[in-house]
Amino acid sequence: MPEPKTLFEKACRGIRESRPPVWIMRQAGRYLPEYRKLRERVDFLTATKTPEIAARITLQPLERFPLDAAILFSDIMTPLEGMGVGLDFAPGPVLDRPIRSAADVDTLRALVPEESAGFVLETLRMVRAELRSDAALIGFAGAPFTLFCYLVEGGGSKDFATARAFLHAEPEAATRLLRLLGTSMAAYLVAQARAGADALMLFDSWAGLVGPQSFGRYVLPILKDTVAAIRAEVDRPLIYFANAGATLLSQVRELDADVVGIDWTLPLSRAVQDLGADVVVQGNLDPAALFASRSELAAAADDVLREGAGAAAHVFNLGHGIHRTTDPDQVAFLVDHVHEQSLRKAG
Amino acid sequence: MPEPKTLFEKACRGIRESRPPVWIMRQAGRYLPEYRKLRERVDFLTATKTPEIAARITLQPLERFPLDAAILFSDIMTPLEGMGVGLDFAPGPVLDRPIRSAADVDTLRALVPEESAGFVLETLRMVRAELRSDAALIGFAGAPFTLFCYLVEGGGSKDFATARAFLHAEPEAATRLLRLLGTSMAAYLVAQARAGADALMLFDSWAGLVGPQSFGRYVLPILKDTVAAIRAEVDRPLIYFANAGATLLSQVRELDADVVGIDWTLPLSRAVQDLGADVVVQGNLDPAALFASRSELAAAADDVLREGAGAAAHVFNLGHGIHRTTDPDQVAFLVDHVHEQSLRKAG
Repeated sequence: MPEPKTLFEKACRGIRESRPPVWIMRQAGRYLPEYRKLRERVDFLTATKTPEIAARITLQPLERFPLDAAILFSDIMTPLEGMGVGLDFAPGPVLDRPIRSAADVDTLRALVPEESAGFVLETLRMVRAELRSDAALIGFAGAPFTLFCYLVEGGGSKDFATARAFLHAEPEAATRLLRLLGTSMAAYLVAQARAGADALMLFDSWAGLVGPQSFGRYVLPILKDTVAAIRAEVDRPLIYFANAGATLLSQVRELDADVVGIDWTLPLSRAVQDLGADVVVQGNLDPAALFASRSELAAAADDVLREGAGAAAHVFNLGHGIHRTTDPDQVAFLVDHVHEQSLRKAG
Repeated sequence: MPEPKTLFEKACRGIRESRPPVWIMRQAGRYLPEYRKLRERVDFLTATKTPEIAARITLQPLERFPLDAAILFSDIMTPLEGMGVGLDFAPGPVLDRPIRSAADVDTLRALVPEESAGFVLETLRMVRAELRSDAALIGFAGAPFTLFCYLVEGGGSKDFATARAFLHAEPEAATRLLRLLGTSMAAYLVAQARAGADALMLFDSWAGLVGPQSFGRYVLPILKDTVAAIRAEVDRPLIYFANAGATLLSQVRELDADVVGIDWTLPLSRAVQDLGADVVVQGNLDPAALFASRSELAAAADDVLREGAGAAAHVFNLGHGIHRTTDPDQVAFLVDHVHEQSLRKAG
């Protein structure tokens, strides 16, 4: 395996240094005035598909804050176009047709990332060339079940009831769709690693909507195959984020992930109980805490640092994407505070 | 206390009979053709505000299925109009103005149920007069934090980020709003008990959005006061439904609730671990399981019955509201199956 060179990669491999690395989910985005300015003249889809712009946006937060990792600016739905899905953002994803039958599944094809997501790979190469050498570059994809939810529902939803019903009503077609998404996202992440990503993250935003039994039966086997397919090709730290997945972690433990991202509703020490002390945890400050007074924000960050101390290593992050109305100065304060606190403890 | 006379009330008091009582969250609603027919000529708001219609809808599912309880047909937002909130449904709740400052909170007044929610009390009296004597009548209200989420956000939301930010940005105003909602909903539930409700349920649909720390600090104290205010006036079983509250249950244990409703993502046996074996649990079949084949549906129901066996008693229910596209014949099959399975086990 490549020698972990950055603080972030070391933490992903379970190596604790003087402080936990810090990055922020959705760190490149609407809370940054420089992002909003750039987006005035280009829509979201164009921004994700134009490597110069996507690379610029990916790097914006690192120019403002001393973050330890950049994450590709893109959307989990972006690669689905290469599988034959018609897609728009308004601003959430809207599909031209939902996938709700075995015949619908047959209309989709496996992703060939080099052919249909070349702009993502080019973005990674451009970021790689500009990124500080002590910062890591994270590539990512949607996890199969989360993409399945959007594909069956035809867009966003509060509870993805149609998608969850489809899983039970047509388990064979659903499994075929999940499998196609799993192999495609594995190929996508392998290509991202080859284009320069130091670590690979699977976002399972809707994992929390499937109960433990259905997770074990329909979701976990495909996640395992996805991880195995990536491991067979490239050696990069793998991060699995099971949003609202508090009740799934004893099963997530079976997944060969290096790092498990935890949302803000589960204290990290309890996550470690279910995951085992050999797993690295990432998270999990409540994004709402960024709206608190600085003393409250500092106390909340300290709690997260304390909670993460029992894991093999800890990647400091929010427990979910940063909210678009967040004051960037609060983010600056948070990042500095985590740096200082950690160093103080080590000293 | 009134002697528990129905199977449902007995279970709520921890008395196990030959089988667990069964009811279905959102059992009066759009999946029933007779409900859709009635709604063709009357909008949702009018239906909730016209006692004859609301009582008819409340009783519809009991005419079709051998359910052990009726639940008032209403909406958790309905009583807020009596607090000075302008409200419409389109179809989710839409408020005429969000509550986002201390001054906004001051514009609201405490609910006087007899004055401004008399139609709800009249609905309960009408249902009471018609309901089978072996079925219980459940009154309900939204829990303070869930109502807070809607009031601050101004309507529904995927993550209620504005409401959660307000909690941290203005903890004093937020607490004042939560407290006003708590005392108002306590008065509302007391009035419902006096109008004929045999049991009272607090729906905390968005409890899962607040982490354990904020729950303990802002939400739980007000819930405790709400429960105490109800207990001081009437003696009825209290059901608390903490949706997506898997990580909150050790705190919910401190709440003096008779029954805790559990969503489908947490196996009931694990809920009992956190709640203690003296608490009655309600739930928690995945509503999506109603779309499965009958053999799969039966197996899923059996799992729930098995999981609930370790609690003081078990009220069988779904883990969330029934989805509107559910086939009513599947519901009939489910209710019969639970009856038969339970009796077979007891025999």
